[in-house]
Amino acid sequence: MDYDFELDIKVRDYECDLQGVVNNSNYQRYMEHTRHEYLESLGENFGALHEKGVDIFVSRIDIQFKSPLRSGDSCLSALHVAREGAKLVFYQDIFRTSDGELAARGKVETVVVRHGKLTRGEDFDDLLKKANR
Amino acid sequence: MDYDFELDIKVRDYECDLQGVVNNSNYQRYMEHTRHEYLESLGENFGALHEKGVDIFVSRIDIQFKSPLRSGDSCLSALHVAREGAKLVFYQDIFRTSDGELAARGKVETVVVRHGKLTRGEDFDDLLKKANR
Amino acid sequence: MDYDFELDIKVRDYECDLQGVVNNSNYQRYMEHTRHEYLESLGENFGALHEKGVDIFVSRIDIQFKSPLRSGDSCLSALHVAREGAKLVFYQDIFRTSDGELAARGKVETVVVRHGKLTRGEDFDDLLKKANR
Amino acid sequence: MDYDFELDIKVRDYECDLQGVVNNSNYQRYMEHTRHEYLESLGENFGALHEKGVDIFVSRIDIQFKSPLRSGDSCLSALHVAREGAKLVFYQDIFRTSDGELAARGKVETVVVRHGKLTRGEDFDDLLKKANR
Repeated sequence: MDYDFELDIKVRDYECDLQGVVNNSNYQRYMEHTRHEYLESLGENFGALHEKGVDIFVSRIDIQFKSPLRSGDSCLSALHVAREGAKLVFYQDIFRTSDGELAARGKVETVVVRHGKLTRGEDFDDLLKKANR
Repeated sequence: MDYDFELDIKVRDYECDLQGVVNNSNYQRYMEHTRHEYLESLGENFGALHEKGVDIFVSRIDIQFKSPLRSGDSCLSALHVAREGAKLVFYQDIFRTSDGELAARGKVETVVVRHGKLTRGEDFDDLLKKANR
Repeated sequence: MDYDFELDIKVRDYECDLQGVVNNSNYQRYMEHTRHEYLESLGENFGALHEKGVDIFVSRIDIQFKSPLRSGDSCLSALHVAREGAKLVFYQDIFRTSDGELAARGKVETVVVRHGKLTRGEDFDDLLKKANR
Repeated sequence: MDYDFELDIKVRDYECDLQGVVNNSNYQRYMEHTRHEYLESLGENFGALHEKGVDIFVSRIDIQFKSPLRSGDSCLSALHVAREGAKLVFYQDIFRTSDGELAARGKVETVVVRHGKLTRGEDFDDLLKKANR
């Protein structure tokens, strides 16, 4: 896949649970952080958007867990973004750095709420223009 | 739906993010905690199973986010469990207590690894017997 | 010690780290949640206060970690509150339910910021009146 | 202060709470991650040590919260380490990158448990030798 953005993330030990692997919920957090860093790379900030009354909400996630990450591991978190109707959909892969194995694969659907009203996603057009998409 | 297990959960303020709502990743955590409490209701404990070399791993989650939970909210976290081939699949709903609205709906697929080897899920049979299923 | 408020908390497995015990940072979270539930018991809500421009901020914590909590454990989280100058200070103990052992002991200092300005803690007087203190 | 180790950390939005600032508990997490990265810089890994039966436990933390970190902020997390009797004590400062302001200052006391027995900290000597201290 051609990715639009990539981010290196080092596993933090408090993210590992009693099974000795990164707890599943943290992959969702890695993916959120990657989306928000992607946003920053386009000159926007998630918190600043919220202050302006523009909120991006996740409406659905679908994550497959493939290979575990452990203490000492790093990963490459990559995303591809696509406008699908009113939604902006993120296809997100996380690869274990040591051997390139796919650790997790996610599809994350998001919508924009402007001053409390669900939009048709026009804000996403501006975003994607900044990304030359 | 007929649920096999229900758990009341009070929102903790550190679970809310800068949008003032429970961060999406925490619904995944609520669902994990509910599964593990279900396990305890059947006389098993997730950590004790791990000590015995039996690990239940989540292989896939699919969560739809419907209505937000906020500071002060409680929710009812309910699950229905089904054996599907080698997998144990949890259908999990989270309802906002104040008005009964569906906050999140998830499908969580799990597998059992015994001493490092993926099983066909025979351990799940024993579990479900305890649940009279 | 005479406590002003007590809360039962069940350990959630994602709170345990690779050492198999509740990660230290989660005791701080248990203590925050206990303070906020105490606030609710007095008819106030942390999020609602923030909406009104009143923010309680933690200025200092001092926590001693005594006995670990593990998967399957419950604890009793208790607090005693004292006005000390402009600060409201919480003395917080967490006891392992199974044997009554002290798991963690904390001293948490808080201040009130009203519309962005540090106060002398007058808001705390109203709070403590509600608590008949 | 002369620091022994420094780490750049970018705020992740899920670490911010409904007050719009990084939740206090996450400074404790930043500090843990910084200590563990320091350990890795010396050729050790926290998870690998645990596998070998050597556990470093935090016995006490004392953290002062000075200036908040927000969405979009980065910080420099620095530590100085000192052997004090059986303990290894970490003096940890977190500075907001944008203006160099001190965000949090912590003192973290740790002990070593080897195969379940509290040690006098002799493992720390080997560590500090690697650090040329």
